[in-house]
Amino acid sequence: MWDALDPVGRVASGGYRRFAWTAEDHTLREWFAGECAARGLDLVEDRMGNQWAWWGDPDADGPGLAIGSHLDSVPDGGAYDGPLGVVSSLAAVDALRDSGFRPARPIAVVNFGDEEGARFGVACAGSRVITGAMTADRALSLTDADGVSMAEALRAAGRDPSRIGRDDETLRRVGSFVELHVEQGRVLADLEPATSAVAVGTDIWPHGRWRIDLPGVANHAGTTALADRSDAMLSAAHVVLSARAAATANGCVATTGKLEVEPGGVNAIPSHVRVWLDARGADESAVRATVDAVRREAERVGGTLTEESWTGTTRFDGDLALRLRDILGPRTPMLGTGAGHDAGVLATAGIPSAMLFVRNPTGVSHSPEEFAERDDCLRGVGALTTVVRELTS
Amino acid sequence: MWDALDPVGRVASGGYRRFAWTAEDHTLREWFAGECAARGLDLVEDRMGNQWAWWGDPDADGPGLAIGSHLDSVPDGGAYDGPLGVVSSLAAVDALRDSGFRPARPIAVVNFGDEEGARFGVACAGSRVITGAMTADRALSLTDADGVSMAEALRAAGRDPSRIGRDDETLRRVGSFVELHVEQGRVLADLEPATSAVAVGTDIWPHGRWRIDLPGVANHAGTTALADRSDAMLSAAHVVLSARAAATANGCVATTGKLEVEPGGVNAIPSHVRVWLDARGADESAVRATVDAVRREAERVGGTLTEESWTGTTRFDGDLALRLRDILGPRTPMLGTGAGHDAGVLATAGIPSAMLFVRNPTGVSHSPEEFAERDDCLRGVGALTTVVRELTS
Repeated sequence: MWDALDPVGRVASGGYRRFAWTAEDHTLREWFAGECAARGLDLVEDRMGNQWAWWGDPDADGPGLAIGSHLDSVPDGGAYDGPLGVVSSLAAVDALRDSGFRPARPIAVVNFGDEEGARFGVACAGSRVITGAMTADRALSLTDADGVSMAEALRAAGRDPSRIGRDDETLRRVGSFVELHVEQGRVLADLEPATSAVAVGTDIWPHGRWRIDLPGVANHAGTTALADRSDAMLSAAHVVLSARAAATANGCVATTGKLEVEPGGVNAIPSHVRVWLDARGADESAVRATVDAVRREAERVGGTLTEESWTGTTRFDGDLALRLRDILGPRTPMLGTGAGHDAGVLATAGIPSAMLFVRNPTGVSHSPEEFAERDDCLRGVGALTTVVRELTS
Repeated sequence: MWDALDPVGRVASGGYRRFAWTAEDHTLREWFAGECAARGLDLVEDRMGNQWAWWGDPDADGPGLAIGSHLDSVPDGGAYDGPLGVVSSLAAVDALRDSGFRPARPIAVVNFGDEEGARFGVACAGSRVITGAMTADRALSLTDADGVSMAEALRAAGRDPSRIGRDDETLRRVGSFVELHVEQGRVLADLEPATSAVAVGTDIWPHGRWRIDLPGVANHAGTTALADRSDAMLSAAHVVLSARAAATANGCVATTGKLEVEPGGVNAIPSHVRVWLDARGADESAVRATVDAVRREAERVGGTLTEESWTGTTRFDGDLALRLRDILGPRTPMLGTGAGHDAGVLATAGIPSAMLFVRNPTGVSHSPEEFAERDDCLRGVGALTTVVRELTS
């Protein structure tokens, strides 16, 4: 399966560009449908185009257990984020069947669409729409970098935009959800001794996004004395450094990954800089303290900080997480994660959900260097197979 | 004249957008031609479309004295940078005529095209092409932000691109050039006591442009521990602050007005930041020392600094500058400038050139706030009138 996925959406860097409702996305969906057909699974698309391949009949014998992840990527993303969960789920089904296992309740392998939000800016769009966390109107009006709305993109992909929305029929079929994912970070790799290649996810860290507006005064770069300048870029530099310092002091993470300058000429003193802050951490008060420190620095240089989004801690289902830990052994690590996932959206919607993380030797993610050892991937399949067997016996 | 120019290319900010070979540029050229026709001046366009309006016959009685400036603007530029010199030159001609003056040699009022280089990225394109400082091939292949080449822009404006190039016939007619310009900076405004509204320009400061490339490693903003990050934005912040510190230490000016981030997502650790440095100063070694300090900081954080352009000190004609000072009085300030001008290009081409600067109370330039008091503008016209009378008697 890995060989078949390898070339789809590959870019020059060795990374991937697999955006929602593009030709690459279509190829990946067709591949998934083919793999499911080869296994005799019943493929159903929900109202947002997420693909659910059922072993057994969820309407007659459900609700069932869903496993899976997503196949789309961030720009220049890695091979594992998403696909490892989908491929491992199909491999777990194979292993169960090879062993002659007959599940007591239905099992679905799911491929969620548009998890990364790389094209339209909202992560987990597939699960958000079917759970009602994002309305159809909001989703359809999102636009990509070329100004194409999701409604237009759906039509171009041969879909009917009027069909999308909350999908209670699909949600009713899902009794619980387990998403396997490559670890984004290297908690498992840094364990001494290296006791485990697989961890159980407990929660998604509180996280948010803030816009910082920093004013300056446009002026000529050659003729304006330093003392007469109000340079928004200098303010931005102070804010960027303050974010790192505050995150270090508070034990969380902060990132300034996007910055815009006006007027943006080499020979013009910047009159306005916008810089965006992403902050997350295991502890909500630590994240808030970090953002407050950045806000003070922005205000010190005459700027403002505006919250664009905030999500508190998302807890996975505690009973399910502990049960996964019991199934996999008492020394299995339990980890929170700083990344969002469809499992978090489903958990928020009330579907008992949990995650399994597979060791990432470098911790790198959202990058061509993202990697997991083959043996660890097989251990992940083994863990998922065990979990599915136990949960559906 | 000021009232007629006021609405042309005005944008919402109150500033101007008057780019080369646009509809606004055409309107300004037509306005200039009309003013010259009303005064009975002979309008000639050179091979680059710069407009020369002659009082007298430069071929029979030349070479003559040229005065003037430009009418184009930077994005969101002010009303004075350029137009003040053109309007003052026409007003000086009026004053001389009203007084019954008969010049002993021809006088031209010139409107140089594309001085700011706001559209195609090369400043003083009009004077550079006719002096041969920029080849026709290079000029025609320059492109604007929409990918339109200067050749295409010329054709769209009804011009013949094959006609442009070095124009010795035009240069032969010009014995000397005096450009009046609003001061960009506030040396005159800060004089105690306020002795003079007009200064004589002596030289254009050495200046250059450098690109700084700062590497990082793309990674997930939520899951990558601070200690594991290589964040190009932090490097950029250090470089931006080092540029200001080095310029302060060396007594020159440094600006980081343009910055690009890759991949540029709010939730992605920057893998590459490019930031551009503009550095200038009265003293060449001080500018070099500033750039060397920035280079060291860039290299300290694993980056590189690349020179994109460098121009040493451009001296105006010393005899002409001193003569202007003598004409205007011994206490007239003599100033270098950090900005480029067509007078610098003509000086480099061997045409004796100098400048007059009119006091700018705030020092602000390349901005809607750019301003000069009406009385100071009239003093500028008076000074220019005196200079022209003395130089052509």
